[in-house]
Amino acid sequence: MVASLLNKVVIFGVGLIGGSFALALKRANAVTTVVGFGRSEATLQEAMQLSIIDRIGRDIATEVCDADLILLATPVGQMSDLMARIVPFLGAHSLLTDGGSTKSDVVREVYAQMGGKAGQFVPAHPIAGAELSGAAAARADLYQGKKVVLTPLPENSAAAVQRVASAWQTCGANIHQLSCTEHDAVFAAVSHLPHLLSFALVHELAQRDNRDLLLSYAASGFRDFTRIAASSPEMWRDICLANRAALLQELQRYIAELTQMSAALEANDAQRLEQTFHTARELRAGWSVK
Amino acid sequence: MVASLLNKVVIFGVGLIGGSFALALKRANAVTTVVGFGRSEATLQEAMQLSIIDRIGRDIATEVCDADLILLATPVGQMSDLMARIVPFLGAHSLLTDGGSTKSDVVREVYAQMGGKAGQFVPAHPIAGAELSGAAAARADLYQGKKVVLTPLPENSAAAVQRVASAWQTCGANIHQLSCTEHDAVFAAVSHLPHLLSFALVHELAQRDNRDLLLSYAASGFRDFTRIAASSPEMWRDICLANRAALLQELQRYIAELTQMSAALEANDAQRLEQTFHTARELRAGWSVK
Repeated sequence: MVASLLNKVVIFGVGLIGGSFALALKRANAVTTVVGFGRSEATLQEAMQLSIIDRIGRDIATEVCDADLILLATPVGQMSDLMARIVPFLGAHSLLTDGGSTKSDVVREVYAQMGGKAGQFVPAHPIAGAELSGAAAARADLYQGKKVVLTPLPENSAAAVQRVASAWQTCGANIHQLSCTEHDAVFAAVSHLPHLLSFALVHELAQRDNRDLLLSYAASGFRDFTRIAASSPEMWRDICLANRAALLQELQRYIAELTQMSAALEANDAQRLEQTFHTARELRAGWSVK
Repeated sequence: MVASLLNKVVIFGVGLIGGSFALALKRANAVTTVVGFGRSEATLQEAMQLSIIDRIGRDIATEVCDADLILLATPVGQMSDLMARIVPFLGAHSLLTDGGSTKSDVVREVYAQMGGKAGQFVPAHPIAGAELSGAAAARADLYQGKKVVLTPLPENSAAAVQRVASAWQTCGANIHQLSCTEHDAVFAAVSHLPHLLSFALVHELAQRDNRDLLLSYAASGFRDFTRIAASSPEMWRDICLANRAALLQELQRYIAELTQMSAALEANDAQRLEQTFHTARELRAGWSVK
């Protein structure tokens, strides 16, 4: 696919998500100029040195008025304020997208802050590793073969969705579409709940006097189960709160499942335990990350 | 360390655990003859071809009467019957050990089946990968640098414990000692509970009509969290039942922890969520498998 050329891309937040987006577009020769905004001057300077951006943005008004595409790659909590600052100066042909892990909250802010220009914002969630962060972690191939989920608004024109999809495809991503509600329900089940459960296990152990003894006998099963408990507390606090309703529902279902397993164990019900484990194993053994 | 030579080692169950024990002793030139017993003739023949064993055992009485060391490397559920068949013929200088993942149940069977010869059984739990199984998976270096937990009985002489420890050390293992009760409490917390939780998550998803959609969006966090849900259903049924009391206690603590997290989420308590995640992250980030 030949990507259409983007004359100017403006990125807010030049860390792993934003920086990798810039590097991927540059590697594809799909952009003329990338302008970066950020809260840390040091990160912006680093992004310049790494050729992630061509220029540090100093004035939102002059930079967004003629941008082809604007990416909000900051924590979701900062997006509302940025939208409010961008929208008065937004060019008529300019589109926005974002890299947030939750979508209903972003969409809510789009309607709250962008009013009649909501149709220019096409929400996106790139499913790409978040273990590292910062400009130095950015890689041109971060999105190669990865999924990007778009959750278009009714106000988005087909052409707007297509232009945003095309930019992410140019980065190597495969495009999927869900409604923002579907998106948040899916990720509550397969991502947000497992993170919460992993944090919970390690937090519970951390309260115990004999935690060092316990951890000294933990092996590879524990290692993999708890890898995500080393994720960013701030980021996961925000994700959990942003997707609170769906996550609470998942948590209740899971507690009910555990209560059933506890009853089977209490009753020495070997057959039910084996059947439960067997069903899980069949599904898990036949699955792999695509 | 120069290992004392074992003239004859008899292994019941020549799969991953038993086969690797044999190969490790042979590589160290620490054994003259290894005799293998098992329920599957095909597996025994395979063990012969792979030079894991020198001879297939045909008669328990004649093989165990002059064995230096006997390893029970079968599922724990088969050990009781084996002990009953071995004990009438057990040589006065022969020692037994095992490779079971739970210890209180093995110790109970030792007392039930071996009576006055209980002191000749030194229970052991080698902490080594159980993802593979069968004779073909056996490796001389499986125990290299791994932990083996001995849970000696009051009836074991110091010399008996030392001789069994020495055999495991010859395989490359580091020896630790716990009481069988301590052992089972520790592994309920750091191994058995995480397995149960991982099985529960996948089993819960398996019940849903939209499981394929959900799994299509699952990524690396889910992959690692659920890796152990592909473990053997039969083996984990047995482990859960064998360590039922300790595991039920862990499960209740965990459900209480989840109930607290659910309350924090319900109350939009950002600070409490972040503090919980932060505590977990600190502990997990500072830990690695040793």
